[in-house]
Amino acid sequence: MATLGDIGVSAAINLLTAFIFLLAFAFLRLQPFNDRVYFPKWYLSGLRSSPTHSGAFVRRFVNLDFRSYLRFLNWMPEAIRMPEPELIEHAGLDSAVYLRIYLIGLKIFVPITFLAWAILVPVNWTNSTLELAKLSNVTSSDIDKLSISNVPLKSQRFWAHIVMAYVFTFWTCYVLMKEYEKVATMRLQFLASESRRPDQFTVLVRNVPPDPDESVSELVEHFFLVNHPDHYLTHQSVYNSNKLAKLVKKKKSMQNWLDYYQLKYSRNQSQRPMMKTGFLGLWGQKVDAIDHYISEIEKLSKEIAEEREKVETDPKSILPAAFVSFRSRWAAAVCAQTQQSRNPTLWLTEWAPEPRDVYWNNLAIPYVSLAIRRLIMNVTFFFLTFFFMIPIAFVQALASIEGIEKRASFLKPIIEIKFIKSVIQGLLPGIALKLFLIFLPTILMIMSKFEGFTSLSSLERRSAARYYFFNIVNVFLGSIITGTAFEQLNSFIKQSASEIPKTIGVAIPMKATFFITYIMVDGWSGIAGEVLMLKPLIIFHLKNFFLVKTEKDREEAMDPGSIGFNTGEPRIQFYFLLGLVYATVTPVLLPFIIIFFAFAYVVFRHQIINVYNQEYESGAAFWPDVHGRVIIALIISQVLMIGLLSTKEAAQSTPFLIALPVLTIWFNSFCRGRYEPAFKRYPLQEAMMKDTLERAREPNLNLKAYLQNAYMHPVFKGDDDEEDEDISEKLEIESVLVPTKRQSRRNTPVPSRISGASSPSSLTDVIKEHPEP
Amino acid sequence: MATLGDIGVSAAINLLTAFIFLLAFAFLRLQPFNDRVYFPKWYLSGLRSSPTHSGAFVRRFVNLDFRSYLRFLNWMPEAIRMPEPELIEHAGLDSAVYLRIYLIGLKIFVPITFLAWAILVPVNWTNSTLELAKLSNVTSSDIDKLSISNVPLKSQRFWAHIVMAYVFTFWTCYVLMKEYEKVATMRLQFLASESRRPDQFTVLVRNVPPDPDESVSELVEHFFLVNHPDHYLTHQSVYNSNKLAKLVKKKKSMQNWLDYYQLKYSRNQSQRPMMKTGFLGLWGQKVDAIDHYISEIEKLSKEIAEEREKVETDPKSILPAAFVSFRSRWAAAVCAQTQQSRNPTLWLTEWAPEPRDVYWNNLAIPYVSLAIRRLIMNVTFFFLTFFFMIPIAFVQALASIEGIEKRASFLKPIIEIKFIKSVIQGLLPGIALKLFLIFLPTILMIMSKFEGFTSLSSLERRSAARYYFFNIVNVFLGSIITGTAFEQLNSFIKQSASEIPKTIGVAIPMKATFFITYIMVDGWSGIAGEVLMLKPLIIFHLKNFFLVKTEKDREEAMDPGSIGFNTGEPRIQFYFLLGLVYATVTPVLLPFIIIFFAFAYVVFRHQIINVYNQEYESGAAFWPDVHGRVIIALIISQVLMIGLLSTKEAAQSTPFLIALPVLTIWFNSFCRGRYEPAFKRYPLQEAMMKDTLERAREPNLNLKAYLQNAYMHPVFKGDDDEEDEDISEKLEIESVLVPTKRQSRRNTPVPSRISGASSPSSLTDVIKEHPEP
Repeated sequence: MATLGDIGVSAAINLLTAFIFLLAFAFLRLQPFNDRVYFPKWYLSGLRSSPTHSGAFVRRFVNLDFRSYLRFLNWMPEAIRMPEPELIEHAGLDSAVYLRIYLIGLKIFVPITFLAWAILVPVNWTNSTLELAKLSNVTSSDIDKLSISNVPLKSQRFWAHIVMAYVFTFWTCYVLMKEYEKVATMRLQFLASESRRPDQFTVLVRNVPPDPDESVSELVEHFFLVNHPDHYLTHQSVYNSNKLAKLVKKKKSMQNWLDYYQLKYSRNQSQRPMMKTGFLGLWGQKVDAIDHYISEIEKLSKEIAEEREKVETDPKSILPAAFVSFRSRWAAAVCAQTQQSRNPTLWLTEWAPEPRDVYWNNLAIPYVSLAIRRLIMNVTFFFLTFFFMIPIAFVQALASIEGIEKRASFLKPIIEIKFIKSVIQGLLPGIALKLFLIFLPTILMIMSKFEGFTSLSSLERRSAARYYFFNIVNVFLGSIITGTAFEQLNSFIKQSASEIPKTIGVAIPMKATFFITYIMVDGWSGIAGEVLMLKPLIIFHLKNFFLVKTEKDREEAMDPGSIGFNTGEPRIQFYFLLGLVYATVTPVLLPFIIIFFAFAYVVFRHQIINVYNQEYESGAAFWPDVHGRVIIALIISQVLMIGLLSTKEAAQSTPFLIALPVLTIWFNSFCRGRYEPAFKRYPLQEAMMKDTLERAREPNLNLKAYLQNAYMHPVFKGDDDEEDEDISEKLEIESVLVPTKRQSRRNTPVPSRISGASSPSSLTDVIKEHPEP
Repeated sequence: MATLGDIGVSAAINLLTAFIFLLAFAFLRLQPFNDRVYFPKWYLSGLRSSPTHSGAFVRRFVNLDFRSYLRFLNWMPEAIRMPEPELIEHAGLDSAVYLRIYLIGLKIFVPITFLAWAILVPVNWTNSTLELAKLSNVTSSDIDKLSISNVPLKSQRFWAHIVMAYVFTFWTCYVLMKEYEKVATMRLQFLASESRRPDQFTVLVRNVPPDPDESVSELVEHFFLVNHPDHYLTHQSVYNSNKLAKLVKKKKSMQNWLDYYQLKYSRNQSQRPMMKTGFLGLWGQKVDAIDHYISEIEKLSKEIAEEREKVETDPKSILPAAFVSFRSRWAAAVCAQTQQSRNPTLWLTEWAPEPRDVYWNNLAIPYVSLAIRRLIMNVTFFFLTFFFMIPIAFVQALASIEGIEKRASFLKPIIEIKFIKSVIQGLLPGIALKLFLIFLPTILMIMSKFEGFTSLSSLERRSAARYYFFNIVNVFLGSIITGTAFEQLNSFIKQSASEIPKTIGVAIPMKATFFITYIMVDGWSGIAGEVLMLKPLIIFHLKNFFLVKTEKDREEAMDPGSIGFNTGEPRIQFYFLLGLVYATVTPVLLPFIIIFFAFAYVVFRHQIINVYNQEYESGAAFWPDVHGRVIIALIISQVLMIGLLSTKEAAQSTPFLIALPVLTIWFNSFCRGRYEPAFKRYPLQEAMMKDTLERAREPNLNLKAYLQNAYMHPVFKGDDDEEDEDISEKLEIESVLVPTKRQSRRNTPVPSRISGASSPSSLTDVIKEHPEP
């Protein structure tokens, strides 16, 4: 076990690392030729232009103003200075609310830390359990003297810990509730903000039933004209353009290669570049690269045109899903929140995600298939979490010296070299695990995609939830109780319900130093590395050097990506878990957590202002997840506290502590009822207010034109704008009344039963002809 | 352990009991003077008139036609003959669907029984484990020879049980799904049936926020005029008439006493009846009873008039809830399914229950209070379930001989009499428990009322769910593992997750004979007792003899009550649980279950047709609960099977069986998504279809007049019809446009910010004046 001195050394090393990273960052960001790496957001919003265009040649690339280096930390106040409304304007609500996660970390843990140090540390310190234990040769460290381990069995002092557990719980819940309220208000304000957005008027309709007489498009139009007669405006069909998208992507990559070779040729005109047509250009016929790509691109262009033609004309390429737009926000809110058809698995309506947020491939999955996919993915995830060590152990066995020698004996002489042998023995097994962990978010994302979510934001949310669970099981529990997750699962099944919290609870104080080190390495140095952005920096310069020709290329090269909610949020949540679990047990850990939250807040605020470019805007739809996971951490901490105290033979404490999880769960259900609807539904009052205002201000607004092409597959919005027009014109349906092509059904008598009534029967006929298929 | 012979004797006794009950029933029901007890439903629907009015004097009371006694069982085919649509017409959808619960019992268990007897019984029988065990003096019975206990450890024959577990699960799920589909269709058909009902157009609005300037009624009107401008029709306020209802009830009881004394006087005119005014008429001043009650009733009538006046005029007696009616079913469906206000705890809308179904006392509970009540009731129910033995043990201790002697020594001589002593010792402890169990449904109902449900049907549903849980813990588990629920809980907490199913699983086969006896006593004789209706019979005749004067009184005396979903359904579910658990373990039990389901089906069909008068109609809203509880029984049976087989050292079976609960849970979530919306929401397509039809058929329908007084507290619909008119006139709001009484807010500048625009500003002003309070 580490002493305070060890921790101090570790802290010094990590602080130094972080400091070096920050210095490097300060240096690099001031160099004009890195400007596009460190400030891409400003370029994208058009507020900053390249500094390399003006000034002396050297100054274009190197910053020679030495005074600017002195103020190397002044990006920090700059990052904090931007007020929140401006930040929302600049980077979107998602990013602004994402930053609030760090803020509630501070809000929760700063008072908790003060209280814990003021009350629990003295209570723990003024015992001599460990001193006595030392006499009998049990090792312990200074840190343990400050922790609950130092309190003797059956001590009345545990009441301090119990009371503090209550105080911490109430404080956390209070902060969570205030924050939920605040974020819900921000979301509603954002949704009701002045600017008109297509998703305010649009509903995504899925599982349109097949119909023998009408196309999907006509069917959708008829259905909504009948069931929302005064409100239906227009709709956009969803085309099966996966193949088209693939072709366009291929063409783009070809175009890139063509550009590359043309650049090469323009630099060195003496020799036309050649290439091989085979796999990866390694073998095959040698041809003139530029001609080859030009002809390939031509071929592709033709194919694309054909495919586009096909998609446009073939009714089979229209998927049974559509984006339906209404005349008012009120009507869209109504349609999104109600059930349309008798069969609740048909005509499913939900709020349309923002156009950028749509995940096009999943729009047309039937209901039964969705249910089965969900089952498969849940089972897969269970095995992934608890049995992921099995394939990795298998790979590790393969990758061992003996394994390689057995399978590839020709490599034997090389492997037998001592240096290489030790590298293989030392690194390979670790690399297999590391690779798995690096690819884990991608694997989880693929799983979410398979599960059939329709928007990027929901894909990320689901991946984040699974990543968090994986972290709890394999990092948190895995660190506390050594052994694979499967061994843990096995032992937990065989242990009793009251034994499990004890087993973990006892181990908790002993792992405090480990987690302190973890926080410093992952939290402090890791965040400092984040601001330096070494990988994007290198990639940008490589691209800039090899590929970039035009200004547009340079813009593409500097694409900073988005913040990565699916990996970032679970990572923050892990610190909430550590903080809450250790708050009553080992308060020494808390300051480290506070430093993490404060530092990460500043860094990510800087990154969001200057670097990341959010791909979509979900209006902070992820907040219920964030809230729920802090609650989970709180409940875990309470259960472990019960386990820990029961091993301390403070048995009378259990009844007092058992009320905590009950109250916390109740608090969560209360919050869910109170605030969650703001994230799932859209109040009619709000919609009506906005509609009325708009109608008053812009009575002549042509909403139809505004919404016409809002939801179009990005592949149709490609570079060939003239072709776009064709499609959009075809998409446009001239008259609102589409004559029905439906023939009289075989099983319906031709003269309608109530055909006696003349004028109203026409409408009822339409309805009668739209029975449940 | 009982042998087959013991079971046979028990069966004979119970069959005999049932037979005697049926004979008694056949005899009693044919007597004309019992007619109103056994056929009240027909009287209530006006299709049967009293046979005591015609014929010879004796024939009025005794049936002398001996031929009718010979066909003493012919009520059974009569009960079955009525087709389901007619049954729905006659007794309502709730009752018809309630009968289907027995039917799915038959559908599930008849094929399972055949399969189990064809496959599992031979597999079990052809072993000799128990014969061998007998040699070593382990007792076992013939029944055990047919059960899984007879299969030796590690036998390959367990595969038969595993396969059968799969077959039974799939069959049960298949039946459940088909049935869910059928019931959902029946519900939708019923809701969309031709007859117009006020709840189709009406939404219950709760948590209307307080407003300083407007009354609740005005506020509701303004809110819905603004947010549902084309659809709002009218609304009815909810008055705080609890005190009024109490007064009316008191008056009615006084009236009853007055009638009683007047009857007495009319029979014996020589002497005016006297009474004492004190407690229970035991002491106090002696007065003339008739005069006393006449003056009391006069006083009360005045009080009632005053209170009515107060309720009508005092704005404080209007509760913050209202029934809002719309012009069309479509608009009501929209309003019920959407969120109205920013704050999701205000302006809560839900489908209005049927007028008869409304539970008036709970309409105006604020959201926070509701959440706290729910928490309190859940905690209370937990203690009630697991610790109910503690107060009972306390009462039992008090009620013991020593306890009574200590507390009331003057009773000592009486108690010391041997006979009385043995009665007290033998009966009192049992009586305490029995009394608790008799009052349990009432206790659960009071708890549900406290929890704040707004309709009688939801109160019954919640009580049923709790009763079911109580039964599982205290009857099912309590019978298998002897010991109180608390001791079980304690031992379960201390046992491991894999140990609990084993502990129970092992005990399961041994308890088969106990449960067979239980089925015969509770299921066979109990149901036969149900048809005899001894208690209502006696009460009716007592009332008839002492109280009844007029025809109206007689109708009140024969009130048969409703079916009692809150006790009846959990009782049926208990048989599902037994059947599913024992299907693979001891198939001998299954025929007993089948007899129960078949017999109960016939009896309850008869009772529903002839006796019970359903108080309200919820449209089979309870079906998701029924479905869910069969699923719970299925999962319990699967988990116990895993436990049982793992003690049989058929360890390789666990992976095969573990898939079953996973699949069952998935199936449940699939069904919930697929069918449950039919029970919670109302499809717009359906509503629109119905609206259009109605508009075509009755273009001049005055919907407002139809809905005006549909939702009025029953106390206002009392006997004083002339007063009713006043109120209903007052409730009617003449003009649709209510002038706002709202003064300009202090914090709003008097000239509206966008008052420049002249015509549209008026509407926006209205909206601006309705911000979130």
